[in-house]
Amino acid sequence: MKIILASGSPRRSHILSTAGFNFTVMVPDVEETFPDSMPVMDVPLFIADKKLQAVLTDTSVDNIVITADTVVILQDRIIGKPIDEADAFQILKSLSGNMHLVVSGVCIAYQGKQYDIEVTTKVYFDHLTDEEISKYLQECKPYDKAGAYAIQEWIGMNKITRIEGDYYNVVGFPMSKIYPVLTALME
Amino acid sequence: MKIILASGSPRRSHILSTAGFNFTVMVPDVEETFPDSMPVMDVPLFIADKKLQAVLTDTSVDNIVITADTVVILQDRIIGKPIDEADAFQILKSLSGNMHLVVSGVCIAYQGKQYDIEVTTKVYFDHLTDEEISKYLQECKPYDKAGAYAIQEWIGMNKITRIEGDYYNVVGFPMSKIYPVLTALME
Repeated sequence: MKIILASGSPRRSHILSTAGFNFTVMVPDVEETFPDSMPVMDVPLFIADKKLQAVLTDTSVDNIVITADTVVILQDRIIGKPIDEADAFQILKSLSGNMHLVVSGVCIAYQGKQYDIEVTTKVYFDHLTDEEISKYLQECKPYDKAGAYAIQEWIGMNKITRIEGDYYNVVGFPMSKIYPVLTALME
Repeated sequence: MKIILASGSPRRSHILSTAGFNFTVMVPDVEETFPDSMPVMDVPLFIADKKLQAVLTDTSVDNIVITADTVVILQDRIIGKPIDEADAFQILKSLSGNMHLVVSGVCIAYQGKQYDIEVTTKVYFDHLTDEEISKYLQECKPYDKAGAYAIQEWIGMNKITRIEGDYYNVVGFPMSKIYPVLTALME
């Protein structure tokens, strides 16, 4: 039995490895699209499932396959990855002084069974000045990140005043909900 | 003007440095004792202030001096650093399946003025088996840590299901409350 992390995210690899698991990485090739009518809270699990179905055909049922998707939701709207610096600036300006949700969907498959996990964390940003946003974009270039920030970088340390929920969900992988499933399957 | 972090904690140094500040380290030499009658929530700021008074005599008033103390509180009782492996085991067993508080007191002094900060974060641990506790103690040896754990190690990833408050407070330094004071003083 082997664990396959079907995600190209270096942050997910880092968390799963620090959490004590050995695994190999496969990158699913899917369009991360969803029906317009879908409630935003359902999107991460929908896309995680899409990724799972895409990789299941290439893997043995005796492997444990994990996929995940994380989105940032502000006032019922999904904030994706920024398309450029100006977009990243606008995203951070919209998060400034507000609470947003980080929602992850995780799918785990093993021997024909599938386990779905949904985790939501509330994140509260302090007020960001235009100078702080510009400095952060220049120094950390968060263009590959949903919501245009990483909580583990200086903007997260200095400007996130409060979270409610799983911290590692905000980093990108809600380990505390994944761990019990993985350990039960490996027994 | 220079920032002096009066704390021997490598985690505090790491956070303050990642947060973008240059500073020098001084280690205050104080007994971390407090009156028996003191309410537990008041202890961290009391000890941070003790550390501050101890180092202020050796530093110029034109430097910004920062001290901090963090305690873990379970059911109104302070959980200190473990005295040995058996004590660490008992501490983690008492945290298992329970919510505890991480409370920090931070004192910042500059030009004869003092700024006091208190931050509390609620931390929820999942159930820990004896095997998980033993494995963690053997691998991570958290004997220098209040509460005998670090949220950034595997036990925190897998077993802390929820926090409410500042994450970096749990690591040991509540940057989101320190940052506005430091930036205001440095303007």
